[in-house]
Amino acid sequence: RISGQRLWGSLMEMAKVGPGVAGGNNRQTLTDADAEGRRLFQRWCEAADCTMGLDTMGNMFARREGAEPGLDPVYMGSHLDTQPTGGKYDGVLGVLGGLEVLRTLNDAGITTRRPIVLTNWTNEEGTRFAPAMLASGVFAGLHTQDYAYDRVDADGKRFGDELSRIGFVGDEPVGSRRIHAMFELHIEQGPILEAEGKEIGVVTHGQGLWWLEVRLTGREAHTGSTPMAMRVNAGLGMARIMELVHRVAMDHQPDAVGAVGQANVWPNSRNVIPGRAVFTIDIRSPEQAKLDSMRAVIEAEAPRIAAELGLGIEIEPVGHFDPVTFDAGLADSVRRAADALGYSRRDIVSGAGHDACWINRVAPTVMIMCPCKDGLSHNEAEEITQDGAAKGTDVLLHAVLEAAEV
Amino acid sequence: RISGQRLWGSLMEMAKVGPGVAGGNNRQTLTDADAEGRRLFQRWCEAADCTMGLDTMGNMFARREGAEPGLDPVYMGSHLDTQPTGGKYDGVLGVLGGLEVLRTLNDAGITTRRPIVLTNWTNEEGTRFAPAMLASGVFAGLHTQDYAYDRVDADGKRFGDELSRIGFVGDEPVGSRRIHAMFELHIEQGPILEAEGKEIGVVTHGQGLWWLEVRLTGREAHTGSTPMAMRVNAGLGMARIMELVHRVAMDHQPDAVGAVGQANVWPNSRNVIPGRAVFTIDIRSPEQAKLDSMRAVIEAEAPRIAAELGLGIEIEPVGHFDPVTFDAGLADSVRRAADALGYSRRDIVSGAGHDACWINRVAPTVMIMCPCKDGLSHNEAEEITQDGAAKGTDVLLHAVLEAAEV
Ligand SMILES: NC(=O)NCCC(=O)O
Ligand SMILES: NC(=O)NCCC(=O)O
Repeated sequence: RISGQRLWGSLMEMAKVGPGVAGGNNRQTLTDADAEGRRLFQRWCEAADCTMGLDTMGNMFARREGAEPGLDPVYMGSHLDTQPTGGKYDGVLGVLGGLEVLRTLNDAGITTRRPIVLTNWTNEEGTRFAPAMLASGVFAGLHTQDYAYDRVDADGKRFGDELSRIGFVGDEPVGSRRIHAMFELHIEQGPILEAEGKEIGVVTHGQGLWWLEVRLTGREAHTGSTPMAMRVNAGLGMARIMELVHRVAMDHQPDAVGAVGQANVWPNSRNVIPGRAVFTIDIRSPEQAKLDSMRAVIEAEAPRIAAELGLGIEIEPVGHFDPVTFDAGLADSVRRAADALGYSRRDIVSGAGHDACWINRVAPTVMIMCPCKDGLSHNEAEEITQDGAAKGTDVLLHAVLEAAEV
Repeated sequence: RISGQRLWGSLMEMAKVGPGVAGGNNRQTLTDADAEGRRLFQRWCEAADCTMGLDTMGNMFARREGAEPGLDPVYMGSHLDTQPTGGKYDGVLGVLGGLEVLRTLNDAGITTRRPIVLTNWTNEEGTRFAPAMLASGVFAGLHTQDYAYDRVDADGKRFGDELSRIGFVGDEPVGSRRIHAMFELHIEQGPILEAEGKEIGVVTHGQGLWWLEVRLTGREAHTGSTPMAMRVNAGLGMARIMELVHRVAMDHQPDAVGAVGQANVWPNSRNVIPGRAVFTIDIRSPEQAKLDSMRAVIEAEAPRIAAELGLGIEIEPVGHFDPVTFDAGLADSVRRAADALGYSRRDIVSGAGHDACWINRVAPTVMIMCPCKDGLSHNEAEEITQDGAAKGTDVLLHAVLEAAEV
């Protein structure tokens, strides 16, 4: 078993890097805080006798050598970047849980047959640069590196420029690694495990997603002196499409969600009718047919709403993944690990996207989940227990050991 | 008659200060650009043999001496601050039209019995610091100076600090001036004069207004892994209240308008359900009963919308004026001036708020309007003609001369 206390200490130490305003973290990708978190992670890995690899997307790979270095390694990992008002565990648990596995193997003097590699994937959150899971997506061949480098944040800064600014452009070509199996430990970010009192989620599937960026063009005009009939109000169009997204998600219940997380109007002045609105629709379902249907309804009705108000509309997909089925064999190994440890478990569908969803395209992959308080994530108040984190990490240890062969 | 060409030259010269991105201006109040515009205005006034007074709210008063300096002066003026994406004429025409009147009197060697004072009022737009017409409001006793100094912009900067930063805190106590009559020339900012082919609007009334800042509190959560039933979505609440504002305005047609110009969600991340939304409702009517009724409906229904979604709500009035009736005698003098000059005219209600609305509380006041292209204002594409501006300024000259007595 791993040391729950040491794991928790590492989590709390990392949480000091890029603190938020309400107990959580703001360690957005490719910021100075992200760089500081990466350096701390690197020091920890090196102290655990690992060598650090770095690819041209800034993905970090800490390698613990195996008895047969030529065999394909077993991978674990997740991401250290956070939302602007993110929690201390989303992604971080998967990375530092992996570190705890390596430290436990060191303490026990265990040599595995296969090497084990612990990864920190760049820009999982997608909040600063859309889409999410950008660097694992390049690794898995879903995006080109040029596409990734050209993503811009809200200030117009390029991903490629920011990656080199923080000094994390490696030499290794991205995607050049062979992976025997990949495990991602993650907090659930939803309410199911907690509600059912289960300690371990065996993630068999993941929801599919579309992010649709909508840009409405109206006409800036005075809120007081412009007659109602003359208005071309982009803010009103945004409001109606927000309601549409909600209705479409409700119409596809159960197993569908939809919301608008990012919303901006211009010039954003109290007495100016918005002449422009830009916002992102997030729709998801574990069922391909529902995901397709939600997108189709939105792409049919949003332009109608815009036309009724005289607005110009552009809809651009800025993020997408299809529903995912994880590796059945690895899911079995996670079940075996939980059972051997005496931890209660259930199969679960991931509501969020994860780096594992992309790696699953190129190598056998599975995820392990542990409960989070009130199902709350993407919130500084995100919370888990030391015991729950330790149990998830124990399962990770056992499943990784089985794959890496002792 | 004034010189239309010289007036136009001054307008174009001022438009170089704080240029916008699309041919208009971004010369928001108490910015460096505002300071530069003020200094240019001061140089022009001093070159026209005026003395410059400055009060503790940064209001600027250029005085052309009269034959009887002890008499209450006749005032003209408006504002030089603009919207973030504002036009070249909103406010500016009233100030530089007044300057053109002074220059014309100088050229003709006319001495009036009463002094004439040309004013640039601070922060008319209200876009950076709510409410609008802030400094004329303090002048007229509607707000205390402490209240005004404590207004903060979106970056948390205080009005009082920014006024002193740009070096425009004067010695003169605000509101200490006696005013015989006040004239404000302004572009219509609406479509009526242009549609009816009238050259001059005699502004007999002004719409009343409420600005209601709404703050919704929900719970930040993951857009993917949070079931629909668990969401407390502040962005959705904002959307529904935006629609409510539109419906309420439509239900009170004609003679009522309503919109949301400023809208922000937090943390404004694609995959986070907004946990907070802050936006400002702008409702107006020339009829007190309609204005009151619109506010009452919104204040009854918005909390119901919030409660349905589980959201906390605060509604704070951040701007208000009742419908205004301007001075009937001065309106007659404007009619006489237009008729004497052979310019077509009609009575009109101002859809926007103006400094004149506040000064009207403490002194006889009236406004003169000239047409603007497509009724468009609070837009960088705002346009007027040189000829239209000259005619409005001619009427200002004649009405001021009548009040100041030759
Ligand atoms: N796990 C997680 O929060 N990933 C971010 C990408 C998403 O929005 O699902
Ligand atoms: N004239 C003008 O645009 N004033 C700004 C205040 C308002 O919103 O009416």
